[in-house]
Amino acid sequence: MKIDAARIAADLDLIAGITETPGGGSSRPTFTPQWAFARDYVIGQAKTAGCDAIIDPAGNVHIRQNAFGWTDPAWLSGSHIDSVPHGGKFDGVTGIVVPLEILRAAHEAKRTIPLELIIFAEEEGTTFNLGMLGSRAWAGTLTMSDLAKLKNRDGVSPLDAGRAYGVLADQIATHKLDPTQYKGLIEVHVEQGPAMWEQNIPISIVTAINGRRQFACTIRGVANHAGSTPMNYRQDALVGFGEIAVALEALPKTLSPSTVCTIGQVFNKPNAINVIADESTFTIDFRSSTNDILDRGAAEIEQTIKSIAAKRKLTADIKQTEALPAVALDEGVINALRRAAKHVGLDNVSETSSGALHDAAILAPLLPTAMVFVASKDGISHNPGEYSRIEDIAKAAELLAAVVQRGDVA
Amino acid sequence: MKIDAARIAADLDLIAGITETPGGGSSRPTFTPQWAFARDYVIGQAKTAGCDAIIDPAGNVHIRQNAFGWTDPAWLSGSHIDSVPHGGKFDGVTGIVVPLEILRAAHEAKRTIPLELIIFAEEEGTTFNLGMLGSRAWAGTLTMSDLAKLKNRDGVSPLDAGRAYGVLADQIATHKLDPTQYKGLIEVHVEQGPAMWEQNIPISIVTAINGRRQFACTIRGVANHAGSTPMNYRQDALVGFGEIAVALEALPKTLSPSTVCTIGQVFNKPNAINVIADESTFTIDFRSSTNDILDRGAAEIEQTIKSIAAKRKLTADIKQTEALPAVALDEGVINALRRAAKHVGLDNVSETSSGALHDAAILAPLLPTAMVFVASKDGISHNPGEYSRIEDIAKAAELLAAVVQRGDVA
Repeated sequence: MKIDAARIAADLDLIAGITETPGGGSSRPTFTPQWAFARDYVIGQAKTAGCDAIIDPAGNVHIRQNAFGWTDPAWLSGSHIDSVPHGGKFDGVTGIVVPLEILRAAHEAKRTIPLELIIFAEEEGTTFNLGMLGSRAWAGTLTMSDLAKLKNRDGVSPLDAGRAYGVLADQIATHKLDPTQYKGLIEVHVEQGPAMWEQNIPISIVTAINGRRQFACTIRGVANHAGSTPMNYRQDALVGFGEIAVALEALPKTLSPSTVCTIGQVFNKPNAINVIADESTFTIDFRSSTNDILDRGAAEIEQTIKSIAAKRKLTADIKQTEALPAVALDEGVINALRRAAKHVGLDNVSETSSGALHDAAILAPLLPTAMVFVASKDGISHNPGEYSRIEDIAKAAELLAAVVQRGDVA
Repeated sequence: MKIDAARIAADLDLIAGITETPGGGSSRPTFTPQWAFARDYVIGQAKTAGCDAIIDPAGNVHIRQNAFGWTDPAWLSGSHIDSVPHGGKFDGVTGIVVPLEILRAAHEAKRTIPLELIIFAEEEGTTFNLGMLGSRAWAGTLTMSDLAKLKNRDGVSPLDAGRAYGVLADQIATHKLDPTQYKGLIEVHVEQGPAMWEQNIPISIVTAINGRRQFACTIRGVANHAGSTPMNYRQDALVGFGEIAVALEALPKTLSPSTVCTIGQVFNKPNAINVIADESTFTIDFRSSTNDILDRGAAEIEQTIKSIAAKRKLTADIKQTEALPAVALDEGVINALRRAAKHVGLDNVSETSSGALHDAAILAPLLPTAMVFVASKDGISHNPGEYSRIEDIAKAAELLAAVVQRGDVA
């Protein structure tokens, strides 16, 4: 059974070209024609390699060899095929083409292997302003009524937007993950940070995933004329936002080296050249490796915003939109990866924690779970310049194949 | 000849209701159905009061009494009927309903008066990102090819958007302002700042208009993953914008008390909750009372942006999109207003300079020009909460009527 790096490279190239923004990176919002077409490409490759595919009511695709039963315990491996706007070609897709290549290699070798490929529906969070919808719905941590409240750029909920792509709202609650059907979950992903690339580490076993808090904030002042309002009479929401952005950038280093805080989105009103802004709405994404730091940081974020707003006579409305705890991954799966690594020539395999959240973090409380990271050039991600070496991805496929074939855990 | 304050109040109420955003303030972008409907209301009132209206090729409306020739020297008085998004009911409209009421009062009194009401096309600048288009085109400081480069929210130039409303692109150059047809220009406007209201001054003669520089800036960094990019590896365009906003807010007080600087508009890319921003594009509106301060301030703005960008490894692109000099208004017209003020019971009429720019600043180099300000409650403007007293506006109408009827200048 032989992993073919050229086939992996071809998959990645082809899927990268399936985008709403040709020439401008991969833009595949969940439940759009481009997203579905990329998913169908993977299903087609798998069917040609002797597999069956089913779509669960939450919109996740499950693929197993025809010769392997749907209820027999299998290793679960997969990731997401949706992207941020103008994203790169490796984020998510890497974790799909790796088990896809293993299924193709097994088919060529005429071997039946306990492996289920999963394509999670909506991981990034940019489409409905909340991420990992498919894994959360399948895990049962997000209900049909939670999903109904979310809206995409067209004001449509994932339940409605997903209907054409297999989502069955009223069956989500009764078709949840059954842990008895799985040996465990191994998600392969690119690191999306610079640490491994800079230290020349091609592959790492991920032993923990940072937790995340997200916030939606609105600060309000008074709209007024830009020419005739003296500086000391202003209640300018946009400059208030600017001061908050600078203050929150300085917060992580007071907490820990792996803590990060990002303001990725802002909408300003009325957003006119000669009008002082009366409303700035923005998001905060805050992550750290321990739940204690997450708690302390969340309190400091709120305090920082309130005190800057008060000083400027602005009002502040702060809503926590997500709280995902930091997750320690499964020691049994990690040990299986350590042992398999030796068999594929990775003698002193590196270990790390994940700064980014992944579907693996959602399933970790329900299944024995670990991850494998592939180095990202200069840490660039969520950007058309994203790059990982095909040989590193092929090595991750060999590592995963070795775990699946050894069967000594979890 | 009697000014009727109730009629002025009725005009203001009716025009305020002509908006793209009913219940959400006055939103009348130039060359939209709402803008044209408000213009037609004024024309209809004037026709009923024995006037004729013509639209010049730049889209400005001119109204004179039928009995008064189009080429005889008249006082020019008017303002704009377009608004910022969600604006107030007094900005611009006040300066239209005042001469309208004088024309109605003259008609009732069966008097012929040397007064031309003008409705300038597009003053605010929010529709095409450059203001005072109608007065500039009429004055000849903006050519047909300049206008062709501007675009509204639908990507349409004022020449194309205005065609349905009387704009004749190829006749603009040959139908410019003829100063021999005018005695001078007096624009009535609300102050849009808090100074007069706080000092209980109902009406002021405006003796100068602050100059304005506007800039379009783009700062660029690197888009990257919000979870896996350590804080010290980031080149975050949005936090860079935040630091610039705070720094520019602090600049005016180092220059003079009447200097102001506003960032009213920002667009962020990719503007996603979990992606570090790689591009922030924003506008700067900078105003002061002397050209020397405008020069020094413009240099400091550029230096501030460049040094913050360099420190953060961002690139900065700064383009000056407008440079309007500070304007001293005409001593002859100011004296005529001073003399007339005594005749309408304003014995010690106050004088001020304008922080906001107005069409009057465009025409001041070509016609003897001054302005009259009416107090704005708490200085609120460009906001549905904008308010001025009807009795103050009626008093401004009496003042203007007295100048027009006395005829002792300019």
